[in-house]
Amino acid sequence: MRLAELGEFGLIDRIADKVAASSSVPLGIGDDAAALLPTPETLTLITSDMLLEGVHFDLSFGDPQSLGRKSLSVNLSDLAAMGAKPRHFLLSIALPRELSLEFMDGFMSGLLEQAERFGVTLVGGDTCASKGGLAISITALGEQRPERVVKRSGAAAGDLIYLTGTVGDAAAGLRELRAGVRGGFLVARQLDPQPRVAAGVALAEAGLASAMIDVSDGVLGDLGHICERSGVGARLDLARLPLSEEYRATSGADPYALALSGGEDYELLFCVPKGRGGEMEALVAGLGLTATRIGEIVEGSGLQLIDADGGAYLPAQRGFDHFG
Amino acid sequence: MRLAELGEFGLIDRIADKVAASSSVPLGIGDDAAALLPTPETLTLITSDMLLEGVHFDLSFGDPQSLGRKSLSVNLSDLAAMGAKPRHFLLSIALPRELSLEFMDGFMSGLLEQAERFGVTLVGGDTCASKGGLAISITALGEQRPERVVKRSGAAAGDLIYLTGTVGDAAAGLRELRAGVRGGFLVARQLDPQPRVAAGVALAEAGLASAMIDVSDGVLGDLGHICERSGVGARLDLARLPLSEEYRATSGADPYALALSGGEDYELLFCVPKGRGGEMEALVAGLGLTATRIGEIVEGSGLQLIDADGGAYLPAQRGFDHFG
Repeated sequence: MRLAELGEFGLIDRIADKVAASSSVPLGIGDDAAALLPTPETLTLITSDMLLEGVHFDLSFGDPQSLGRKSLSVNLSDLAAMGAKPRHFLLSIALPRELSLEFMDGFMSGLLEQAERFGVTLVGGDTCASKGGLAISITALGEQRPERVVKRSGAAAGDLIYLTGTVGDAAAGLRELRAGVRGGFLVARQLDPQPRVAAGVALAEAGLASAMIDVSDGVLGDLGHICERSGVGARLDLARLPLSEEYRATSGADPYALALSGGEDYELLFCVPKGRGGEMEALVAGLGLTATRIGEIVEGSGLQLIDADGGAYLPAQRGFDHFG
Repeated sequence: MRLAELGEFGLIDRIADKVAASSSVPLGIGDDAAALLPTPETLTLITSDMLLEGVHFDLSFGDPQSLGRKSLSVNLSDLAAMGAKPRHFLLSIALPRELSLEFMDGFMSGLLEQAERFGVTLVGGDTCASKGGLAISITALGEQRPERVVKRSGAAAGDLIYLTGTVGDAAAGLRELRAGVRGGFLVARQLDPQPRVAAGVALAEAGLASAMIDVSDGVLGDLGHICERSGVGARLDLARLPLSEEYRATSGADPYALALSGGEDYELLFCVPKGRGGEMEALVAGLGLTATRIGEIVEGSGLQLIDADGGAYLPAQRGFDHFG
């Protein structure tokens, strides 16, 4: 069945039928706007990410379910980086006419599965025809008490810099996909990243992170954002970068290049006041994750990169810029 | 100057510099998510609309300022239809690399001018490169007390049906644009619709509207949505349809076709309990707008269309369907 047979409003009804009711949504899909009930004494955290065919994804690389999950995950990752509990989201989607209903059903099942896993409810959005490729725009909303929200701007000299998980995998996975590989750990890290929601919320609620960001543009670019907003510099010990075995096996002569500049790992990069590192590591370990110390915030500005033998490392590329 | 010279983060900074601070935005553009402070005891109303080059707009038809205004207006119109006061919005935009910085500056100046006019603050979003055309996705947030929110589902048999302003103009304007016309009233109604925010909020706060929707898909389609959600039917007196002189001059043999099915007028279509019509008309007149009674809600289902000589009118097309 093609979308043209179902029609725009048939498609919306088909989506709405699959969405569970939520007590925080007095009015969901099906009116001019959705109505949400904010939790008293919380701030609403809100973020939006666009994913475009040919720019952010290639339909031949993965299945529609993974694309659905990833479309939500990248937004949940932004909320996690603020320490916000995710609550609601809107999906706007522009669909090429030739796209099958089976594709759309697969996409929605992945998206709604990830939504259920993270306790967020689809409340609205927009559907339209696309004359270009598939375009997906998701806006996600979360909540947190004002004093717990973690910004990019709170890093101070002396703070320890940590990373959850490993970095470089998603970029290495993209390189493999482009070379024709269609499975394995690195490819899964590119197509189906897992947002670190539990860790972001736990760090915020324990008051352990002075600044936090998710690694979407690459470690250098994203740490650079923290330094710029906080008015500080940073020193990174590259030998401490958390790299997966699979990444090391494919990284070639320069193991740091993709790990520093590749992006799309959706791990959390955060700063912890000196002396609270042990407490933080125990908290994150309790969530079944690792957090690795990769360096320290210093006075001044700019990033100092120290390689394994103590020398200065010069990166070939700093981070991803859409217009660069 | 081309966008590639400015870069993604240069563009974001350039936009952020033009946005005024707001007390309801503890954290605006420049972090992983924006933080908003909801007004106690209100619901958050949220809506999202996507505008795609070649589908929703043609860059050769109008100037970038109008496109910026319209991109926000269509979202504000959805909030108005709920009776919500608009507060904040996010802009996600995918830009073809060849687009000039002058275009982007014009688009942003129109968008932010409309934002200032309606008291809404840009708080975040996403920017990325597009390999297809220009794609714009805006999410707008408003607020209203729960008991004042106007849904599509509240119409009851006997309610009077009203329309603000005139209908058919935007569709007639699009027809003129396609024929090479580049100015005048009808074209302006297509390129630069004005959301009926003051009227929507006033109707909601006076408790005068039992159901409301904005005319984006066309009178028949949108009234159909109200009837379906409310479990009622409607009788429309076509001779009462509010048509502009300019529309009448170009509408040809069937003056009702575009007025009923054209869409994009962004007027409000709403129902008023019988006996409160006079009160409502005075309220809307006080805002410098007209509201015209076009029919009545009836028991049952479906739309009865009565033409000027009392006969039944059969529309050629019902409303706009993106996949139809």
